[in-house]
Amino acid sequence: MSPHARRREALRAHLVAADVDALLVTDLVNIRYLTGFTGSNAALLVHACGDAASRFCTDGRYAARARAEVPDLEPVIDRASAPALAAAAPGLGVARLGFESDVVTVEAHDVLAAAAPGVHLRRLPGRVQRLRAVKEDAELATLRAACALADAALADLLAAGGLRAGRSERDVAFELEARLRGHGADAPAFETIVAAGARSALPHHRPSGELLRAGDLVVLDFGARVGGYHSDMTRTFVLGAGAAWQRDLHALVVAAQAVGRTAAVPDADVVAVDAAARAVVEAAGRGEEFPHGLGHGVGLEIHEAPAVGPTGSGRLAERMTVTVEPGVYLPERGGVRVEDTVVVRPGTPEVLTGSPRELVEV
Amino acid sequence: MSPHARRREALRAHLVAADVDALLVTDLVNIRYLTGFTGSNAALLVHACGDAASRFCTDGRYAARARAEVPDLEPVIDRASAPALAAAAPGLGVARLGFESDVVTVEAHDVLAAAAPGVHLRRLPGRVQRLRAVKEDAELATLRAACALADAALADLLAAGGLRAGRSERDVAFELEARLRGHGADAPAFETIVAAGARSALPHHRPSGELLRAGDLVVLDFGARVGGYHSDMTRTFVLGAGAAWQRDLHALVVAAQAVGRTAAVPDADVVAVDAAARAVVEAAGRGEEFPHGLGHGVGLEIHEAPAVGPTGSGRLAERMTVTVEPGVYLPERGGVRVEDTVVVRPGTPEVLTGSPRELVEV
Repeated sequence: MSPHARRREALRAHLVAADVDALLVTDLVNIRYLTGFTGSNAALLVHACGDAASRFCTDGRYAARARAEVPDLEPVIDRASAPALAAAAPGLGVARLGFESDVVTVEAHDVLAAAAPGVHLRRLPGRVQRLRAVKEDAELATLRAACALADAALADLLAAGGLRAGRSERDVAFELEARLRGHGADAPAFETIVAAGARSALPHHRPSGELLRAGDLVVLDFGARVGGYHSDMTRTFVLGAGAAWQRDLHALVVAAQAVGRTAAVPDADVVAVDAAARAVVEAAGRGEEFPHGLGHGVGLEIHEAPAVGPTGSGRLAERMTVTVEPGVYLPERGGVRVEDTVVVRPGTPEVLTGSPRELVEV
Repeated sequence: MSPHARRREALRAHLVAADVDALLVTDLVNIRYLTGFTGSNAALLVHACGDAASRFCTDGRYAARARAEVPDLEPVIDRASAPALAAAAPGLGVARLGFESDVVTVEAHDVLAAAAPGVHLRRLPGRVQRLRAVKEDAELATLRAACALADAALADLLAAGGLRAGRSERDVAFELEARLRGHGADAPAFETIVAAGARSALPHHRPSGELLRAGDLVVLDFGARVGGYHSDMTRTFVLGAGAAWQRDLHALVVAAQAVGRTAAVPDADVVAVDAAARAVVEAAGRGEEFPHGLGHGVGLEIHEAPAVGPTGSGRLAERMTVTVEPGVYLPERGGVRVEDTVVVRPGTPEVLTGSPRELVEV
């Protein structure tokens, strides 16, 4: 049985529990997880009775790719992939069809209902995402490779003096991305963030043409995509000797990050994990300046389940891969964020991102 | 009045016609179009009575960016941006609130309804997308620059001998993307396609480690992102002297493409534009081997309204920017696609992508 067939088998248990005859999967990342298909138009009907009655649909542009990537499912070629499989449901004995109500839009839902008038559509949000959150060995190996590759690219950048006053944020970002590719990344995991000086206080700054200057805090937040999986790491540097406030701020964030990592154990409530790290920042009187969650799942998507933050819900489980990334941002002055990608393990998490966390004065 | 305020004003006429008091915009690209905001979490309530009662919402990570990018709207800071604005609707005198039913998921719709129990939610799909399809002068200038930049990058690649037997598809793609950046692109418009030999028959092939070989057809499909706008161009080459079948196939696609460009005039039905180009391919007995639509709108998204294909609907209008990209793919042998980005104009479209379309034997 292929890894994808095994995942569909694991999904089936949830379908039986949810009392549906099949799940119509329309999220492309979920489809990739369950079939291996990497094209941009597809739908998948996972039948509760087994894959003999499951169906995969894509359009003519991807007919050859579907044969290569999804050899073990009956293919349907139709541009309107999701309605086509909804229409096929009655012929497959499906009376109650689950759909991804957290993915399907209000309009698309009507199209499905019209395509399968006799079928009862039932909401099943987040089912595949929940499976995806817990990683298999092969997935962990790929994530490990992606993180190691990002470490190597950063080490190269620093060794080559690529992070220095006088360069633009954009030039640093381009060099880092080129080095990711040089080490074998398929692509950057997301648009690399390089934020220097006062701009480091903007958590989601995009690299600008502004130049790095001596004395700047510089936040680098970046990752590699390898075989569809993403790494995610943030390190904060200072150009030259750090001022006392910069060193203090960095030490505070590193301390909060260590507490967050320690809290990321199996069965921990995601709100409690966030709160543990946040308490360190709040105790320093900086709670207001940590305006985002502690972390997020990472895998086939750069942001996926679970959300680890004040508004998250649920518990961590062994083999989940999550980021731990507190940040404190002083408007107009500068900010610090330190982020690792970790695998939840009993006791202590496995840290996949290995670059030193200490404040490096470059 | 800022360009964004003018766009909100243009949207207002549609709100009055649709008999709603406001539209809740949740699509991030639509929000960017209407406000200039570039962050990853936002919602916008455009009030039919004017911007004094309109509201913009994002979370704390983007507070500074919101002040800088959206100076002319009252900001609300809340992580649950769309529900927060739905909840604010009654206080703004909104009884009938339009929402983007082609964007909002079934689950998210329930969250909105729960946040605004007294408010009647009305479906208004595609309203902002329809405005976006017709470009303003400044948008056309940016698209022109993005296309010119892609032309320059391709010319450089060819002049430097970057397209040659023995290189991998991936290396060619990386070089092309680096040259795009060298010419000032913010990023590639999408993942560059380099497809050689039999792989050129896969319309959406991703660059592999496979090597280009003498005699191969090579499809390059790529673009530049500049100021949020995307260019899109495809050219097909042959490595060495083209065989007769390759030259014939290329000539067929170029002929179909020319007919498609000629058909792309104001008021033309998008299905008819597609059919005009398709007829050329069908007359050659190759209709089955042209398995995708003729083109698509391009702007703030690489694929946006209008869809120009057999399943599209509606008519072209002056100042729409669309691609014209027929392709014919012979399984196991090779394929040809030729694509321009054009601006619909009375008479003849303005072609933004200027690279020669003739078969180049490199």
